[in-house]
Amino acid sequence: MMLEWVQIIGLSTIGIGLLLCYEATAGAGPLVRATRGEVWPKPQAFQRNYSYMFVRPNHFKFKVTFHTCAILDKAIERYKKIISAYSNVGGKQLRKWMKSDPLFHGYLDSLEVYLDTPCEEYPYLNMDELYSLKIDYGDLESKALLVSSSIWGVLRGLETFTQMLTPSIHIRNHLVVNSSLITDFPRFPHRGLLLDTSRHFEPLSVIFSILDGMECNKLNVFHWHIVDDQSFPYQSQIYPGLSEKGAYNPITHVYSIEDIQSVIEYARLRGIRVMPEFDTPGHTQSWGLSIPKLLTPCYQGGELSGTYGPIDPSRKENYKFVKTLFQEIISVFKDNYIHLGGDEVSFDCWSSNPNINQYMKDNNISTYEELESMYIQKVLNYVTNMNANSIVWQEVFQNNVTIQNDTVVHIWLGNLAQLLEEVTSAGHKALISECWYLDHLDKSWIDFYKCEPWNFDGTTEQKKLVLGGEACMWSEMVDESNVVSRIFPRASATAEKLWSSEDTNVVHSAQGRLEEHYCRMKKRGISAQPPTGPGFCPI
Amino acid sequence: MMLEWVQIIGLSTIGIGLLLCYEATAGAGPLVRATRGEVWPKPQAFQRNYSYMFVRPNHFKFKVTFHTCAILDKAIERYKKIISAYSNVGGKQLRKWMKSDPLFHGYLDSLEVYLDTPCEEYPYLNMDELYSLKIDYGDLESKALLVSSSIWGVLRGLETFTQMLTPSIHIRNHLVVNSSLITDFPRFPHRGLLLDTSRHFEPLSVIFSILDGMECNKLNVFHWHIVDDQSFPYQSQIYPGLSEKGAYNPITHVYSIEDIQSVIEYARLRGIRVMPEFDTPGHTQSWGLSIPKLLTPCYQGGELSGTYGPIDPSRKENYKFVKTLFQEIISVFKDNYIHLGGDEVSFDCWSSNPNINQYMKDNNISTYEELESMYIQKVLNYVTNMNANSIVWQEVFQNNVTIQNDTVVHIWLGNLAQLLEEVTSAGHKALISECWYLDHLDKSWIDFYKCEPWNFDGTTEQKKLVLGGEACMWSEMVDESNVVSRIFPRASATAEKLWSSEDTNVVHSAQGRLEEHYCRMKKRGISAQPPTGPGFCPI
Repeated sequence: MMLEWVQIIGLSTIGIGLLLCYEATAGAGPLVRATRGEVWPKPQAFQRNYSYMFVRPNHFKFKVTFHTCAILDKAIERYKKIISAYSNVGGKQLRKWMKSDPLFHGYLDSLEVYLDTPCEEYPYLNMDELYSLKIDYGDLESKALLVSSSIWGVLRGLETFTQMLTPSIHIRNHLVVNSSLITDFPRFPHRGLLLDTSRHFEPLSVIFSILDGMECNKLNVFHWHIVDDQSFPYQSQIYPGLSEKGAYNPITHVYSIEDIQSVIEYARLRGIRVMPEFDTPGHTQSWGLSIPKLLTPCYQGGELSGTYGPIDPSRKENYKFVKTLFQEIISVFKDNYIHLGGDEVSFDCWSSNPNINQYMKDNNISTYEELESMYIQKVLNYVTNMNANSIVWQEVFQNNVTIQNDTVVHIWLGNLAQLLEEVTSAGHKALISECWYLDHLDKSWIDFYKCEPWNFDGTTEQKKLVLGGEACMWSEMVDESNVVSRIFPRASATAEKLWSSEDTNVVHSAQGRLEEHYCRMKKRGISAQPPTGPGFCPI
Repeated sequence: MMLEWVQIIGLSTIGIGLLLCYEATAGAGPLVRATRGEVWPKPQAFQRNYSYMFVRPNHFKFKVTFHTCAILDKAIERYKKIISAYSNVGGKQLRKWMKSDPLFHGYLDSLEVYLDTPCEEYPYLNMDELYSLKIDYGDLESKALLVSSSIWGVLRGLETFTQMLTPSIHIRNHLVVNSSLITDFPRFPHRGLLLDTSRHFEPLSVIFSILDGMECNKLNVFHWHIVDDQSFPYQSQIYPGLSEKGAYNPITHVYSIEDIQSVIEYARLRGIRVMPEFDTPGHTQSWGLSIPKLLTPCYQGGELSGTYGPIDPSRKENYKFVKTLFQEIISVFKDNYIHLGGDEVSFDCWSSNPNINQYMKDNNISTYEELESMYIQKVLNYVTNMNANSIVWQEVFQNNVTIQNDTVVHIWLGNLAQLLEEVTSAGHKALISECWYLDHLDKSWIDFYKCEPWNFDGTTEQKKLVLGGEACMWSEMVDESNVVSRIFPRASATAEKLWSSEDTNVVHSAQGRLEEHYCRMKKRGISAQPPTGPGFCPI
């Protein structure tokens, strides 16, 4: 497919157009040759001529000709800045003969942005992200037009447009773009990145950098795994003790409500949802430091062992606490969804505790799975009553907890195809993370790229229940020194699987584009690491 | 061993001394509790009392009372700055009762530095790095004294002293240090870090940061694997075409002679040697881009295939080129050693080439190993005649090239113990890297730490032939975004194996110290990554 383009470009006697070839070499030079002006993730429909226009970074303007709003204004500011950064790059000087090249269609000085519906305020599941982009194509000679019915589509289109501009090899301070027609929309509505800020705390600057990277990859859900066993950096207003006792440091290693609002705002402006996870009843050791009797005391040989297990589901007060906390969380995070966790609940502690066993006897609960179900069921009901939707890790489904149909099951461990088949045949929506764990250092972007969300036995209806997935950055081994480079560009592979068409699945076609995309992210200040092997980025 | 210290500290009723305990927990909080004021790598002899003194970061001075030189002046500047960075850290306020603590020995306002021999100019193999450090110990009440017969020992002692100062838990803006007596020296003279700047180019700022990290770990050889197949960033004066054609970018991705001098100077001031590697006859694809007929043309089916193999050893002109280039290299890099490479020479291309085969017939060379030997032997002789010493990768030894006894054999692949036995029983000096490849992401610092250089069958004389080793950062998958975090703190494990005594080998004793050391490096701006698991560094 790429070869065809090389041939087309070969027809241009002057050869100033874009070189879209991929080349792997064992000799001198980069392992993978970067493409020029290719888009990541790949648009759904992309037609291109070999004619081209020049863009002068400091002359270029965005013209909004219908609806606008702060989201659009700020996006234009951002992309103007990104384009400006390409001043003083490229070849050496304008050569006279270029102007006589029949493929040269002049200077493109603006992009018209046409949003035909007023802006929405917050991004949400199933928001409209469709856009079309025409550059010097068909009846639109020497002009460029971005059209969408949604501010979210406009954001995606601005990203695509900006990615298409690439420094001219021949002319300094000039970007070049092919005549093109793009119609684009995502294959899946939920394209996420999970960040764990409990095992290591991440400063806001790092979170912002990750959100920059997400925008660049059209990822639209920041799944904030904000607390866990090790630390509780969420600064609750109603239970301030949670972070005072549970954070690594109650002053420097916390997220205040204002911090969280700044993250939500930063994300909103980029069309990214911020979905919090407060995982219970397991993964709550740090919670127990401030809330008396929240956790189950474990016994050993009939005596208290001094250690604690999951939240004690036999105490009424604990439900009251969880309900009150979740009320605050749902009001702080604007998203319609909350991730309730529910993974890795160990039954050892519950089974060691005589009060728990008595409670089960009294309430006719015969297994620990049932006990867990009871707990989760209650929490699910609270959340439903607060008009929020729930996502749970797969164990909740596997332990036969009664969950509503619109509760989303998040798959992270085991046989992905089989789990997808089971979850969707039970009528549940599903999210995929099993093949996209960023802390698995033996997995390259190519492994990520080979994971196909629809690769399971199921009807068309079942496949529709797959909402998408998330790359997961568990932070046992990452802090601000290495978290961004560990996320990008591997999460870019996830992003393309979730945005682009099912047949965008050829590693050889993708790798040159990813090499370009990696350098593009670096140019924007996102410290992505090399995707494939030896190489370099233009400075 | 650590527990003993906890007990000793427990004796202090006020408990303001240093807490030196290690703690692993599956519950809330860090996986490994950092020590306070411990030294990495661990000194050879370290006696400590539980009395302590305070250091006020902005009051503290170094007093040089005998020899001095620019190296010492600049080191003092550096360490003053590091100590100053600990202003405004620590506890909240001075409590009156502290002054009545019998363990409190007052304020330490200076360190006397006594160098009893004039400074040497450049570090070298077997330089003297021994020092002794006394802080409020024995007859030296309420004072601190660093003594060494060598500027290199002074540098190591300043590093140790600075590491021992740790923020007081109780008193803001105060560091605390125990009364201590240290006598310290390295177990091995060659403690290196290899950086490959060919697969990815690293900017000078990154190299400086790596040298900062090396100083912090008492590593003393920067092995600069500066060129390789993929790119040739070394800007030769005599053969400028090498980088003009062979660098990824001849202007932005090169090291000029001045750049290299600045690296050598930066390293010299830290007691670090800069040893270049110019690997031949393989790994030279990028060299061939500018030097006609340097590389062997490969044949396929009797025809030229268009690809090239190792340096063509049948052409006289190639030896002249290599000799001239190495003359320049040896004069640019001040070190007594040059690494000549010699690894992974593929014989496929040589054997495909009729001219090579004819040359072998004419010269009575019957195997390709012999051909390689002939080439390497010549290069080794050039280097010897230029009064430099050589290091070669293990293949040179394994292919039975005749090498002088003082040529060092660098082991990187295979059965380490067996290779060490073979190399040293043949009377050669050896360097170890086999167990310290930083690009092996499945290897943690614990794996690195378990590699014992003397763990092979051999006499005491043989063990003396082990000069040390190097952690190797091959750069196929690293660029400036991730190279520093990938090196540190895993290379710290290598550093301790090479500096500290053989019995410094208990992971449980080391891990708390390494946790502290990781945070120490971060505090100095070296972006080390988490060593072991969940945790945090004080800001």
